[in-house]
This record gives sequence, C-alpha cells and structure tokens, in this order.
Amino acid sequence: MTDTLNRSTPAAPAHDPADGVRAYELDRQYVFHSWSAQGALKPFVAASAQGSYVYTYDGETYLDFSSQLVNTNIGHSHPKVVAAIQQQAAQLATVAPSHAALVRGEAAKRIVEKAGPGFSQVFFTNGGADAIENAIRMARLTTHKHKVLSTYRSYHGNTGAAIAATGDWRRMPNEYAYGHVHFFGPFTYRSEFFSETPEQECARALRHLERTIVAEGPGTIAAILLESVPGTAGIFAPPPGYLEGVRALADKYGIVWIADEVMAGFGRTGDWFAWQNPTINPNRATPDLIAFAKGVNSGYVPVGGVVISPTIAEAFADKVFPGGLTYSGHPLAAASIVASIDAMTDEGIVENARMIGEQHLGPGLRALAEKHEMIGDVRGLGVFWALDLVTDRATREPVSVDVVNRLKAELMARKVLPFAAENRIHVVPPCIVTPDQVADALQAYDGAFSAVAQK
Amino acid sequence: MTDTLNRSTPAAPAHDPADGVRAYELDRQYVFHSWSAQGALKPFVAASAQGSYVYTYDGETYLDFSSQLVNTNIGHSHPKVVAAIQQQAAQLATVAPSHAALVRGEAAKRIVEKAGPGFSQVFFTNGGADAIENAIRMARLTTHKHKVLSTYRSYHGNTGAAIAATGDWRRMPNEYAYGHVHFFGPFTYRSEFFSETPEQECARALRHLERTIVAEGPGTIAAILLESVPGTAGIFAPPPGYLEGVRALADKYGIVWIADEVMAGFGRTGDWFAWQNPTINPNRATPDLIAFAKGVNSGYVPVGGVVISPTIAEAFADKVFPGGLTYSGHPLAAASIVASIDAMTDEGIVENARMIGEQHLGPGLRALAEKHEMIGDVRGLGVFWALDLVTDRATREPVSVDVVNRLKAELMARKVLPFAAENRIHVVPPCIVTPDQVADALQAYDGAFSAVAQK
Ligand SMILES: Cc1ncc(COP(=O)(O)O)c(C=O)c1O
Ligand SMILES: Cc1ncc(COP(=O)(O)O)c(C=O)c1O
Repeated sequence: MTDTLNRSTPAAPAHDPADGVRAYELDRQYVFHSWSAQGALKPFVAASAQGSYVYTYDGETYLDFSSQLVNTNIGHSHPKVVAAIQQQAAQLATVAPSHAALVRGEAAKRIVEKAGPGFSQVFFTNGGADAIENAIRMARLTTHKHKVLSTYRSYHGNTGAAIAATGDWRRMPNEYAYGHVHFFGPFTYRSEFFSETPEQECARALRHLERTIVAEGPGTIAAILLESVPGTAGIFAPPPGYLEGVRALADKYGIVWIADEVMAGFGRTGDWFAWQNPTINPNRATPDLIAFAKGVNSGYVPVGGVVISPTIAEAFADKVFPGGLTYSGHPLAAASIVASIDAMTDEGIVENARMIGEQHLGPGLRALAEKHEMIGDVRGLGVFWALDLVTDRATREPVSVDVVNRLKAELMARKVLPFAAENRIHVVPPCIVTPDQVADALQAYDGAFSAVAQK
Repeated sequence: MTDTLNRSTPAAPAHDPADGVRAYELDRQYVFHSWSAQGALKPFVAASAQGSYVYTYDGETYLDFSSQLVNTNIGHSHPKVVAAIQQQAAQLATVAPSHAALVRGEAAKRIVEKAGPGFSQVFFTNGGADAIENAIRMARLTTHKHKVLSTYRSYHGNTGAAIAATGDWRRMPNEYAYGHVHFFGPFTYRSEFFSETPEQECARALRHLERTIVAEGPGTIAAILLESVPGTAGIFAPPPGYLEGVRALADKYGIVWIADEVMAGFGRTGDWFAWQNPTINPNRATPDLIAFAKGVNSGYVPVGGVVISPTIAEAFADKVFPGGLTYSGHPLAAASIVASIDAMTDEGIVENARMIGEQHLGPGLRALAEKHEMIGDVRGLGVFWALDLVTDRATREPVSVDVVNRLKAELMARKVLPFAAENRIHVVPPCIVTPDQVADALQAYDGAFSAVAQK
C-alpha cells in the first residue's frame, strides 16, 4: 500500500503474538467497557508504546493521533517520567493524604507556578471528574449559592455532579444531582445565535450567558463551569473576548469561574493552559479555579486536581473543606507530574505543540480540506484540531456515523490511531509529534478521505 | 523510654533531613488538604516505607497500624508489586479504555475469580468513590428505579452520588444528588433498635430495613448499598444472618444489593471479601455488585472498580452503559493488581490476616480492655479492629475528641502511626503484620492509654 506510514516509522519491538490473542480473549470475557454496549465490541489490542507510536503483539506500528483519550501529551514511555515512577514506586508509592510527602509538594509547586499569579494551592484528585466535583464543591461552599452553569456542548466527567454538569448526551441517563443549568456557549461554525462572524458570536454568546444568569437569578448561581476549549464536543476555541466577558459577568454577579482544562491544559493548545493562550484570551482574563488531569502527567498514573486562587483557599483556613479521597496527592502520581512538567519545560514540548500547530498541522489540514469536499471546517490550535465533516458545505449537515466509522477503519488500515466523535475526526497527536510524523499522518488522512469518498 | 518499639524494629534508611523540612514547607504552602480546615494542619512527613514500617527524613521508624487510609493491605513497597509497576511503566503505562491491554484482562480475571461464582466481569475506576458511582449507575439502569438506600453510619466517597449515599456528617454540606434515602444498619454495641443481643439486633435491623423499603415504595428503590463491614463508621460486622436477610429483601422487592468492599475487601477481614467471611455471612449470601478499591492493589496506583454479576453485565450487551473515565482499566494499575493478588495468594497474606486476628490482635486487644476502663468495646476480625472509647462503660458515653487527640499524640510518641475516628482508635495494620509487630503495637497502645488516663 502506498499510503501507509513511510518516513520515520520505527519497527515494533518483539512481542509474543499469543499474548495478543490472550489479551483480546481476556478482555472480551472479563472487562466491562465504558460508554458502550458490551456485545459488539472489538477492541484494538495495544502491546507497548513509545513516543508517538503504539505497537501491537503482531509487530505492527501505529502512529498515535488520538493521544489515547487526548492525554499522552508528552508521548508514550517518556524515559524521564518512566524513571521517576520506577524510583518513587520503590521508595513510597502511597501515603495517606493527611501526611506530607516531598514529591507531592514539588508537584503542587510546579502546577501553581505554571498557572501563574492568581493561584496559590492545589487539591489533588484521581482524574478529571473528581477534579470537577471538588471545584464545584469549592464554588458552592465559598459563594453559599448552589447552581452551576455549564454549556450544552461539554463533557465534565462521569461522577454524580460532573455528569450532571456535562451537557452532552451522556448526562441524560445520569441526572442525579440538582442545581445544574445548561446554556449555549460560542461556536461560530454551528452558531446557536445566528451569527456570521466570531465578533458577533462573542457578543451574542455573552449576552445569552448574562440573560441566563439573570433569568436563573444571580443569587442562586455558584459557578460558571467552562471547558476553556471544548474538547470532546468539537474543539472550538471561544472567540477572543469571550473569556474576558465571562470574567466580567462572574465578577458582576459574584460567581466563581471554573476553567475545565482537563483536556485543553498542559500543552495541548501550545500553552500550559488554554486560558493563557493569547489567541484565545488576549487580555488573559484569569479563572478562579482550574480543573486539570490528563496532560499534567500524560496519564501515566491516574491523577487530576484543582488549582485554587488564594481567595478560595483562604476561605477554608478555619472552615473544614468537606471533600477528599484516599489517593489525594498520591506520591506515585506526584512523581510522574514532577518529571513530566520538568521534561516538558526542559525539552520545549509546549513550544513544539504550538510550532506544529502553526507550521504543520494547521496548514496541512487546511490543504486537506481544499481537496476533500467532506471537510466542512478545520479548526484548532497547537495539537488540538477537529475536522468537522459534512454532507454539504452550504447546509453544514453532519455526515452519518457510518461515514465516520468507515473513515476510522481506513485510518486504522493506514496504521494511524484516530480519534472520532460524532461527525468529526479530532486530530490530537502528542505535543512531541514531529513534522515528519505529521506529514505521515496527513498522507494517511488524505488516503482515508479518498477511499471513503470513492465508495 | 521503655515503651517505644523494641522487638523487631528496623533502622530507617538514610534520608536527607533537609528534604523533610522542604517537604513540610512545600506542603504548607502549596497543598490543599482533604476533610480539614487548612489553617492549623501539621502533617507528619513520610520519607519512605517498607512492609509495616514508615520512615521519616530524620531517621525515625514508625510502625504503621493505620495502613495509611486502611489501604496498604500488602504492606509498603512489596518487592513484587514494585517490580510489576516498574516493568509496566516502561512498557505501556496508559492506554485508552476502549483498547485492550493484556494486563487489564489478567487483573479482571483474578478479581472475578476471587469474587467467585456469581460474578463475571469487572468495570475499573480510579478509586472507591467512582466505583460506588458506577455501581449505583448500573443498579439504576437495570432496575429502572432510582432510589438508593444506604445506612447513616457509612462512608461511600466524595463525588456527587457517592457523597449523597454516605451517611456520616460529610454528606451534609454535599447533598447534590437526589434519590438517596438513609436507614439504620445493625450495630449491637450502639443499637438503634433497643436490642440486647446480636440475634435481636439482626432481626430488628432487618425488620427496620423492610419497613423502610415498604414506606419508601419498593417500586422506587434501585439499590441497597452497604459496607459489608462498616469501616470509618466504626468497624462493626453485621450479626450473622443480616446479609442473608438483605439478600432476601433485595430478591423479594427487585432491588440490587451493592456490597461496598472498598475498605473491607481484599484481606482486611481475613477473607478476600468480607461478605465471603463465614463468621459474618455463614450461608454466603451473594451480592449483585461489589465495589472495591484500596486493598485490591494496596493503593500503590490509584484504582477501584465494580465486580458485576452476569445478569447485570448482560443487561448492557446491547444497551449502552453510560459511564466511563479516562483511566478505566489503567495498565499501570492493572499490573499492580495482578502482582498484588498473586503475591497475596502465594504468600498466604489473607490467611495471615485471619490468623493475626484470631491469635494475636483479638486476644491482645481484649486483654488491653481488661486493663483500661476507657475501652468500652473491642470489636473486629482479621486486621480490622476498633476500640470504642467511653467515659463510662455503663452509659457507653463516647470520650471527647480531646481524649482521642491525646491518645494519637501518645501513640505517635511511641512510634506507632494510629488511625483515629470520632471516639475510636481503629487498629488496622497491614495484612502482613507479624506477631512481634502486634506485640510491639500492643505495648505502645498500653503505654498510651496509661499516659492519657494519668492526666
Ligand atoms: C474537559 C473534560 N473534563 C473532564 C473530563 C473527565 O476526566 P476523567 O475522564 O479523568 O474523569 C474529561 C474527560 O475526557 C474532559 O475532557
Ligand atoms: C467503604 C468505603 N467506600 C468508599 C470509599 C471511597 O473511596 P475513595 O477514597 O478511594 O474514593 C471509602 C474510602 O475510605 C470507603 O472506606
């Protein structure tokens, strides 16, 4: 095949194919999978991984343009992060949250420093959902109000309050928690406000948000919870000015702004946090709480958390904070955070993500769109891009699930691990991706679009 | 001092005391702690740990009779678990839940096998709270009912639905989720039912549960959620017959029984699961779902999950299960589970916990109670014991927080890491604890009780 990976693809390390068979069989027999009907699953079996590549037991090499669930920002098996985990595992893997551990303090310090002025402490959790839970808890308990506003096009996690805050379909069978109100955020390509320009979309979306606040009653609203760049919902950065407008409304009505940076944070947009990215938030309006997970340690060890402003942290100086979990500030996770943030800093990995977006992925994907009628919109920044696929560029009618499934299969056949959601392909490689790897992937996308269009 | 550790205490490995100072300072500056007011915290600093011991940067050795948060069942730094983590970290630390990984299947297989007949699959989470969230989700979606019954004396985690299911004070500032109803479970020493014997307590508690089901409406109740042995609430195994009665009520009214084995499971009671322990559940009534975390891998990597009965698993063969999380079935966590379950099996660690309870801790703690008037009740099994402290054995009036705090300080002075909750000391060493270590700890408890009584 002419369009499989060709420039820089390394050979897979030796694995026993029988292990791949066993992995598949054990999975089908014993493992219950998330967000799916269990009957028809046919999981891809991963054996090992390195950098931007995932290897199978059959000796195949896949280029990982999914970053798994958009979490391996530093790539797979980064030697410094692996070494830090190995060292910490031997010294002190786990400790009660009430005790102190050096590596936990070092991790918190680095995260606070990357968040910059406006933040003073970190509360650690196990992942994104419980980061959101605890951010909401802090907002409710400091404002003494209870409602949480979040957007319909959002995903915030699968636990009680996080899933009720989520706007997408996953909320509907799960609405266990009260006080969650949803509104529409800005999304110029599929505007809810009949806008034609980003400027219009920004102004109208802010007007809609303020009307929602007023109609719900500002005295009832604890938090505005926003993915700084909505991720699973389709990777659409807010128009410049929107986050600043949110900050102004939060201040005007005494509401806490929670930035959900679980997917967008730690390099994905070419900045440490998406809200710090000058193309998104030119005047650097600052949230009160930042929820993080994924990229903070690329998910090598499950972890997440909340970066807290001094005002909110101090509100719990004498008042008990009623939240916690057994593995808050887990040393193994902390060690992986320290190594990961240090390596990303030292190796310029965040800058690489920005460069790749500006010089390779952005131009490359736009060129692809010129060739393939199906690509209705190309949007993104850094290593965080979406191809919005349509049956008709004028109506912007989304393509069917079937088309997306065929595209996924064509990409797998071309040895690229894709990320698909609804009518979209998300192009989300690790932040360490090289220009050559981008070129390889673009060739595979090109071939896959041609193959699907031909059928 | 004559009553510090003396029999088997190893010297602490070399650490730099300056690191201890830095750990403390970073903690106070950057780390936001769970379940506490932040102002007055003075955390203990742990440097490293091995087996039943925790070491400080100042060269001190503490005997860990807390198992941290009752999670290090296999002890600290078990060489086989450490090696498995180190190996897996280098090969494949993280993978999307939708893919398959050999080690995840191996972990699920072992857990299902330990759960025994009646269970077929595992859904993995990051910890106990999200295990509970997903067990509740499964119960609600398979029964098509929504209420969850749980006891007032319980703790189920800090996320939205888990914290609303929790019965203790931690629920009150956090009641975000609807449909949670609380009832009283059996607790002979502090009966809510005016019982005088375990038999009476069992019958009356079951009668109370059935009355609650009928009064709430059986057609509204999805689940009965029970810690098989309530842990943080005070370690009181239900009287024999209670769990069988719960099973019968669940069957009669079409309700799912969720066993919360987060703290009680994986060896703590001297059995793999507390519901399997013949002294607790002689006729082995079997739950529908088991929530686990902590002991499954001793918390070396954050993980938890739900063991699922075939009936419930099959209900999602064609229907989408609407729950999930980025790190479901995390390979690093799975590797630590496989190594931990294998080592616990091969080394007879669960049997050790039972032997220690029957031959050393049980008799030793009862002897302590004969000496110290303050100890109103000694209860437990395996390595899961509580000393219920009272001002008066007749009225069973709990001692004050102040007394418990002084006891904690005396135990720390005697180089024992204690676990205290309300008016109780929980005696919860790792399952690998030796008779000599128990003797050391008993001596320290003895000294601490004498010191507090003298003041
Ligand atoms: C923006 C956002 N918030 C929260 C979450 C939940 O994180 P987790 O899956 O670690 O619970 C996700 C997961 O994809 C996410 O993308
Ligand atoms: C019985 C029980 N259930 C659930 C939990 C919550 O587990 P986690 O802290 O891992 O969320 C705990 C924690 O102590 C527990 O003891």
